Amino acid sequence: MFIEIDRDSDVPLFEQIYQHIKRQILNGEISSDEKLPSKRQLQNDLSVSMTTVESAYDLLLGEALIYSRPKSGFYTVHIEQLQHVKPPALHHKVNRPAEKSYTLPLGTIDTSIVQSDVLKQIAREIFSNDELLNMGDESGEKELKEQIRHYLHINRGVNCSLDQIFIGPSTEFLLEQVLFLLKYPAVTIEDPGYPVVKNILRRLESPVDYAPILKDGIDVAAVHTFNNQAVHLTPSHQFPSGVVLSLKKRIRLLNHASAAESYIIEDDYDSEFRYTARPLPSLQGLDKNDRTVYMSSFSKSLYPSLRLACMVLPQSLAEQYFETGLACNVPRQMQHIIAEFMKRGYLDRHVNRVRKIYREKMIRITEWIKDNYEEAEIYGEHTGMHFMLRIPGKDLRQSAERYGLVHGNSYSDLNSMTDTVLIGIGEKDAEEIVGILKKFFESLKEG
Amino acid sequence: MFIEIDRDSDVPLFEQIYQHIKRQILNGEISSDEKLPSKRQLQNDLSVSMTTVESAYDLLLGEALIYSRPKSGFYTVHIEQLQHVKPPALHHKVNRPAEKSYTLPLGTIDTSIVQSDVLKQIAREIFSNDELLNMGDESGEKELKEQIRHYLHINRGVNCSLDQIFIGPSTEFLLEQVLFLLKYPAVTIEDPGYPVVKNILRRLESPVDYAPILKDGIDVAAVHTFNNQAVHLTPSHQFPSGVVLSLKKRIRLLNHASAAESYIIEDDYDSEFRYTARPLPSLQGLDKNDRTVYMSSFSKSLYPSLRLACMVLPQSLAEQYFETGLACNVPRQMQHIIAEFMKRGYLDRHVNRVRKIYREKMIRITEWIKDNYEEAEIYGEHTGMHFMLRIPGKDLRQSAERYGLVHGNSYSDLNSMTDTVLIGIGEKDAEEIVGILKKFFESLKEG
Repeated sequence: MFIEIDRDSDVPLFEQIYQHIKRQILNGEISSDEKLPSKRQLQNDLSVSMTTVESAYDLLLGEALIYSRPKSGFYTVHIEQLQHVKPPALHHKVNRPAEKSYTLPLGTIDTSIVQSDVLKQIAREIFSNDELLNMGDESGEKELKEQIRHYLHINRGVNCSLDQIFIGPSTEFLLEQVLFLLKYPAVTIEDPGYPVVKNILRRLESPVDYAPILKDGIDVAAVHTFNNQAVHLTPSHQFPSGVVLSLKKRIRLLNHASAAESYIIEDDYDSEFRYTARPLPSLQGLDKNDRTVYMSSFSKSLYPSLRLACMVLPQSLAEQYFETGLACNVPRQMQHIIAEFMKRGYLDRHVNRVRKIYREKMIRITEWIKDNYEEAEIYGEHTGMHFMLRIPGKDLRQSAERYGLVHGNSYSDLNSMTDTVLIGIGEKDAEEIVGILKKFFESLKEG
Repeated sequence: MFIEIDRDSDVPLFEQIYQHIKRQILNGEISSDEKLPSKRQLQNDLSVSMTTVESAYDLLLGEALIYSRPKSGFYTVHIEQLQHVKPPALHHKVNRPAEKSYTLPLGTIDTSIVQSDVLKQIAREIFSNDELLNMGDESGEKELKEQIRHYLHINRGVNCSLDQIFIGPSTEFLLEQVLFLLKYPAVTIEDPGYPVVKNILRRLESPVDYAPILKDGIDVAAVHTFNNQAVHLTPSHQFPSGVVLSLKKRIRLLNHASAAESYIIEDDYDSEFRYTARPLPSLQGLDKNDRTVYMSSFSKSLYPSLRLACMVLPQSLAEQYFETGLACNVPRQMQHIIAEFMKRGYLDRHVNRVRKIYREKMIRITEWIKDNYEEAEIYGEHTGMHFMLRIPGKDLRQSAERYGLVHGNSYSDLNSMTDTVLIGIGEKDAEEIVGILKKFFESLKEG
């Protein structure tokens, strides 16, 4: 066997011998069940030490590329040739759909409102605690659940025990878990509505019906007619219309769910940022019959990249969660950072402070529109970080595209929102937003 | 209308009036479409200011509990009564299955091996960067993907572009995404095997076939006979047997997948901790035909509660990931902390240091067993943080229970491991483990 070895190389000699024989076997240059030179013979041929040869043969044995026959020597195993179906390519080019970037996006915040100095300090403390490096409670940390229970009880009227609270990285993630717990039921959802919800239902092959949004919230009669095992809705601030579900409808939904033994999945989206009157109590808080799954995210109330959300499950679904071995998938340290942030009162203060900032922005912008463009109609300005702007009868698709505004039809399968754009107020300051809208309105007059 | 108001209360007068009327409406004490007293009348009745009455009526109007008829006054809306199906209970008791706690658990580490001082320092820096508070790349941060690509290329022979890398909180989470991308295919899995994989397949209603584990890895003939669209395996360190898949079988699996256009899902579990010889190259690294999904977790190589994993997808599945709007669900800050940790070389150093610690532990413990208990067989001691201990012909179920050891049958649907226990070496030090095993062996002799 001819093996060229390089005594000046950084690669050890045993490694060179091993690599050479391996390559020959894999390339079919040595056929299967062929006898290799004995260790002594190879040692003499190459003028290397016995240890070197032994190390090389041990590696080949370890990878089952050769085998030994007692009192005979070493033989190559039979190895198939690796097939190349396609022309070889080391790095694949992956085509990614272009991401739309908006001038006034809906989910983006002005990051200077977040008290990152406090977060930084708490992170330092939490990362010093080695006890948090092993796994904790798979459903979420007790310390965080305690804070969430208190917060949701005070602010949203939610009533539950700690074991009914489950942590997750996002409401989308939690929704998938709920759909599994409900055995992928048929679901009634809102139209217009949050497209990610539709996406998840499609992905998990749950059948879907659409209920339209009326001025006091989802069309309850439609929900009852569909009579699906679950209805998913955003009662605090319907996305994207901004409509708040009336108390009357809340009660009708709850009573129907009790009678039909179906479930209400309440995504309490944007409930923190209600500017006029007080928020209506959550459906979960009104529910006396365990028909509501409540969920809420910290993406809006704290910051979008946090990836932290929670849900409250009725008793039977909570027990199923534990039995079927679901898991929260949120880093334990991150849970403790937010638990501490809440425990020290920073979340309450943050939400109060930010609510004021958004309210002032919202008033400044919508008043300016009302004063200058009478034909414009504004919806959903009493809650949240965006509002709907409608110019009745006007097709806004082209202008929205041109000014990078979010067009209403992005959120309606029924394309019912041609004359509507959505204005996010989270990222830019009020004067900047007014400036952009001014140009937008002027272009409409020209067009 | 009689409303008792308490002028000494902390609750403002308008709130008291609002609450009182609301309660009466919800309890059906005022029937629907009943006329309320005029604002002026109520003002006189209660001797309060007009503003107080107006605020109360505005809240009721805002919640759509009353409506106004022009030139007539305010009327109650029709509200259903909330139904109580069950006796009311504020806090539900949720029954949780008792968690088994093991003396020598498999996934737990001695946390003192982690350089938390470094992590703490990096966390401080990352939490100071406000730019990370808004959403980043939904598939994972570029900075982390760059580090992972380099690391996997050097250490595991993985070849891929950045856009083929996807981040997630766990391999379980990523497996769910892969199963969706493959449209919930029939999957061949290993038996014995990792129970969480079985769990996920059951949850997503993917059909399953079991291939047994032979001494050089999964039974490839069985995989070919089942001819499913995907096979899931742990080739670096088969869980729980510790068997390493031979190169010969790697090539056969790859060639079969190319011919059948099926997929290999490679969970590169425990590949970092191989104590003898070098690790075999990953299947992904050998694959020339885009049939391999590679995944790996940082839970073992760094620490269990981190919740960070990655996968490498073939080009077509990568494009589908982006088209269908999947998301990584890992906090952006956490991704940057680990990216920095890797960039500064701490992960390489950590893995090398810890490999040495585990190797020494492993040798000390297994040598002790070999010296003292000849009847014991040891498997899977060359890789990872646990090994298999078999006492041929002996039913170990009771002793395992008594000494809190993990019994083999926990991982086999075929109950093929009655005479086997699994010994985790991650958490306790070598002498402590030897002490526990000594008692275990002595009890076997008595029994």
